[in-house]
Amino acid sequence: VTVHLVGAGPGDPDLLTVRAARLLAAADVVVHDRLAALATALARPGAELVDVGKAPGGRAVPQDAIDGLLVDLGRSGREVVRLKGGDPFLFGRGGEEALALARAGVPFTVVPGVTSAFAAPAAAGIPVTHRGLSAAVTVVTGHRAGDGATDWDAVARLGGTVVVLMGVATRGAIADRLVAAGMDPATPVAAVRWGTRPDQEVLRCRLDELGAAPVEAPSAIVVGAVAALDLGALAPLAAARG
Amino acid sequence: VTVHLVGAGPGDPDLLTVRAARLLAAADVVVHDRLAALATALARPGAELVDVGKAPGGRAVPQDAIDGLLVDLGRSGREVVRLKGGDPFLFGRGGEEALALARAGVPFTVVPGVTSAFAAPAAAGIPVTHRGLSAAVTVVTGHRAGDGATDWDAVARLGGTVVVLMGVATRGAIADRLVAAGMDPATPVAAVRWGTRPDQEVLRCRLDELGAAPVEAPSAIVVGAVAALDLGALAPLAAARG
Repeated sequence: VTVHLVGAGPGDPDLLTVRAARLLAAADVVVHDRLAALATALARPGAELVDVGKAPGGRAVPQDAIDGLLVDLGRSGREVVRLKGGDPFLFGRGGEEALALARAGVPFTVVPGVTSAFAAPAAAGIPVTHRGLSAAVTVVTGHRAGDGATDWDAVARLGGTVVVLMGVATRGAIADRLVAAGMDPATPVAAVRWGTRPDQEVLRCRLDELGAAPVEAPSAIVVGAVAALDLGALAPLAAARG
Repeated sequence: VTVHLVGAGPGDPDLLTVRAARLLAAADVVVHDRLAALATALARPGAELVDVGKAPGGRAVPQDAIDGLLVDLGRSGREVVRLKGGDPFLFGRGGEEALALARAGVPFTVVPGVTSAFAAPAAAGIPVTHRGLSAAVTVVTGHRAGDGATDWDAVARLGGTVVVLMGVATRGAIADRLVAAGMDPATPVAAVRWGTRPDQEVLRCRLDELGAAPVEAPSAIVVGAVAALDLGALAPLAAARG
């Protein structure tokens, strides 16, 4: 096996999996996104680092170019780690990369990671499910909020927690849609930026304040009763390093 | 800090986080569930292991007894790892344990884990989101499928992937509800038992066949177009060990 599609977790390199850390330590090449940048510190000294992430305001490397790069690197016989923020199969386009490798006959493995969708809220003291408050959680992308792929009325009616990833730019429109579909305008919201990292920022507001709130990308936006919780106030994740 | 609420990941101990492995290696006491049993192999030799999991057909330790045990252990000054299958804040009742510790004034940390809800499908070659097939994923518990906490009509209408945890016993009723709410009876379903473990089993069927299909607990049940994919056929996770 030469190509590993690896989840880098939510940001703190301590939250990589044991397997991910081992593969990084043995890698010849690491192809990474912006959100996985911190974890490249765990790569073998001398490993080639290829940044295919989108810089703020910059241009992203097209997905088919990344697919082609992975196929080429895989055929070169080098040990390749494709390092993706969070989990490779949750909005990570890992499925597309896996398909491209499979079609090219390049062997690969998939290494699940800790998803930011749940870990960023956790780092802010928010459990995405909690007895009596939420018995379901929906993770949606805000990236294509208007294209009809997501039935926001159904999201609003579901009655559980909603986590929006890549939704900073569209947060106002999403909030409007959810309120129009019947969600309480006073529903608690928490936006967690750089969750689990030392520079983590948490902003809390009501759903009808989300559009005007100063939320910056990348943030995980949590909508629902659990967003009012702060179980971690006594014990931020950083304390675990002590 | 004396108590750590730690996610053990989906089953394969190689998918623990680096921090979880380190905390286990230093633990005096490990309080674990059945689903986290394999990971106790990483505990410090000599560490006390306390199994509070529910054996098949057996009785579970009541949650308030677990809460009380964690508070008592935390006050004893020993290094306590509360090891929970998957992620502690996704149907792990980690929120309740965190609250109990906070109320008792016992310092604690939360260590997110790789959730079975996404990793079990991944281990079966199924990405929970995939371009053109699914732009959202909802994780629900089947444990209290009939108590009204979840709006199954909304789940059916959402148009994304649905992952049901703890839903083996209620799978027939859930499938009926989803079909009644308009979901295509031919919607692909995959039930992944012991996902990521060597004894992993994958059963695939149509939604209207789920009730009669021989699914055994514990399984993650994936409903949606992505459940027909098998991206991992060429490269099971076990291959990564090679």
